[in-house]
Amino acid sequence: MSDGPAPTITWKGGLDGRCELIDQTLLPNEVVILDVKDVETMWDAIKRLAIRGAPAIGVAAAYGVVLGIRRSGAADEAGFGVDLNKTCDYLASSRPTAVNLFWALDRMKAHASTLTGGGVERIKQGLLDEARAIEAQDRAICHKLGEIGAALVEDGDGLLTHCNAGALATAEYGTALAVMFESQAQGKKISVYAGETRPLLQGARLTTWELMQAGIDVTLICDSMAAQVMKEGRVQRVFVGADRVARNGDACNKIGTYSLAVLAKAHEIPFYVVAPCSTIDLQTSTGEQIPIEERPPEEITEGFGKRTAPEGAKVYSPAFDVTPAAYLSGIVTEKGLISPVTEDEVVRVVTP
Amino acid sequence: MSDGPAPTITWKGGLDGRCELIDQTLLPNEVVILDVKDVETMWDAIKRLAIRGAPAIGVAAAYGVVLGIRRSGAADEAGFGVDLNKTCDYLASSRPTAVNLFWALDRMKAHASTLTGGGVERIKQGLLDEARAIEAQDRAICHKLGEIGAALVEDGDGLLTHCNAGALATAEYGTALAVMFESQAQGKKISVYAGETRPLLQGARLTTWELMQAGIDVTLICDSMAAQVMKEGRVQRVFVGADRVARNGDACNKIGTYSLAVLAKAHEIPFYVVAPCSTIDLQTSTGEQIPIEERPPEEITEGFGKRTAPEGAKVYSPAFDVTPAAYLSGIVTEKGLISPVTEDEVVRVVTP
Repeated sequence: MSDGPAPTITWKGGLDGRCELIDQTLLPNEVVILDVKDVETMWDAIKRLAIRGAPAIGVAAAYGVVLGIRRSGAADEAGFGVDLNKTCDYLASSRPTAVNLFWALDRMKAHASTLTGGGVERIKQGLLDEARAIEAQDRAICHKLGEIGAALVEDGDGLLTHCNAGALATAEYGTALAVMFESQAQGKKISVYAGETRPLLQGARLTTWELMQAGIDVTLICDSMAAQVMKEGRVQRVFVGADRVARNGDACNKIGTYSLAVLAKAHEIPFYVVAPCSTIDLQTSTGEQIPIEERPPEEITEGFGKRTAPEGAKVYSPAFDVTPAAYLSGIVTEKGLISPVTEDEVVRVVTP
Repeated sequence: MSDGPAPTITWKGGLDGRCELIDQTLLPNEVVILDVKDVETMWDAIKRLAIRGAPAIGVAAAYGVVLGIRRSGAADEAGFGVDLNKTCDYLASSRPTAVNLFWALDRMKAHASTLTGGGVERIKQGLLDEARAIEAQDRAICHKLGEIGAALVEDGDGLLTHCNAGALATAEYGTALAVMFESQAQGKKISVYAGETRPLLQGARLTTWELMQAGIDVTLICDSMAAQVMKEGRVQRVFVGADRVARNGDACNKIGTYSLAVLAKAHEIPFYVVAPCSTIDLQTSTGEQIPIEERPPEEITEGFGKRTAPEGAKVYSPAFDVTPAAYLSGIVTEKGLISPVTEDEVVRVVTP
């Protein structure tokens, strides 16, 4: 958020500078800024969700590339290219699902290839400029998502969201939460229900925090309460983010999203995904091709520093699920609303 | 469970004895037996969920009556009747939703009225005998529920359950879990998915513990994962307990149950409620008349001794929800299976 205490992620200084990011694992109790000065620390920050949210992961990966190559001692551009690929492959291994990670790495490599012929130092500087451009574009895109999404919101609406698709998931303003920030900025009165989002409670820890800071009426619920809240008529629209959208419109997002989509349909409540085009992967034809990360069992059995299940209990913990396109009323992108959600419409809106 | 380390709740000694119950708030880390010697302690044990589960609450209420009246100094039966009513009213104020609480109190009062003319001491002893009879009947009923429910289970089934409707929710064996214990006893191979059941994690803490002790294959999931688990074809049937069933078959149970029923229907998975007839309240015509307890916000915001939402966050925490009869494939009672779930069938099966 523009009025937040610190940006989710940004770069300080020149090529010898550092990436600053909020350690989201400590929110809302502590606001700690991590100074990230090497690629290993960035890999770890992505892996352990100190930085999370598909667009923010893209920005983190771009700065991670800068951190990984800035001290490259390669004597020539060919040698530098080897170092660059190695850094990108390493960062790509941090988390498998969010496509923005791979999108940002590809964009950094593509940009490097446009900078050849001027020497290694010029490429290094150019990559920092490109990472900064990715961050700046993400800010602009999120504001655009907010505008397009807010047009779908009516005064007095109750809105439901899941996980955190807010400023903390992006460089600024968010995706699904951008719709709420923008609706409020337009003077629409809204009330938001935030699912706590087990196991890591991004909804409880991050979404309520962001919305409360923005002065938006927000009510925290357990994920299992969403159906009841819908049945009681408290929700008119659902907005969620996405980690990857397939060419046919199937949307992969935090585990529990598919559940909400089925429940919304049963209660005849419109269900929207809000995501930048960088989250839409035209190379992935359907949701079935999206790899789903499984998280460690301890996040469920001792997620709060206290054991809450018997020792040795078997756990299944997919971090994401895929909502079939048929459940989506629309996908809000910075290039416009995709609705109905069909392969043709996805390709038409996304293609430059 | 018959092979468990201690009964969920029982009475030790004569009229000057005590009620022993497992403090379920400490499971699975500690197995602590509470010696309950006065009615205030029993009220508190019910209120704070040291004893929970509709049938177990009924047994606890019955023993609570004994504790409340055994030291009554009433000079005559009329005076004793006043004390008895006062004790019952007090216990009735502990938790509003589970009808077994009121059912047990009514049964104790009705039994007392059959014992008049023999003096106060005879009524006191008779009430202890009646409470013991309620406990013994609950054991027998749960085994019958298991038999009738297990007939619905096929070899190789994946079963899903919510909260804890096991031995810990009853005097022994459970309701929904009785179906699983009995299926295993019959040699059917089953695998069970247990929803952790936020906010108080009865699924994680109690259901996995009971099923693991019985050697049944159980996998713990977050509540938000049930839809995905269904979509992956891992679940063939859902069995849950109930806190109150209305005359028309609407079933009130732990929050999250209605969500599972909607999801099961969308995935064409049969959904069964397992409950003794004492849970079916013919005086409540539909689910809309069932009072829904709201729980304290702290159970969600700092449920693990650690704050996981911002200070001052608004919370909505209904403890139960109502699943409309139309979502139920059947209700398993000790008198037989109610299916289809209609008012006529409910009344036909339940009426003596």
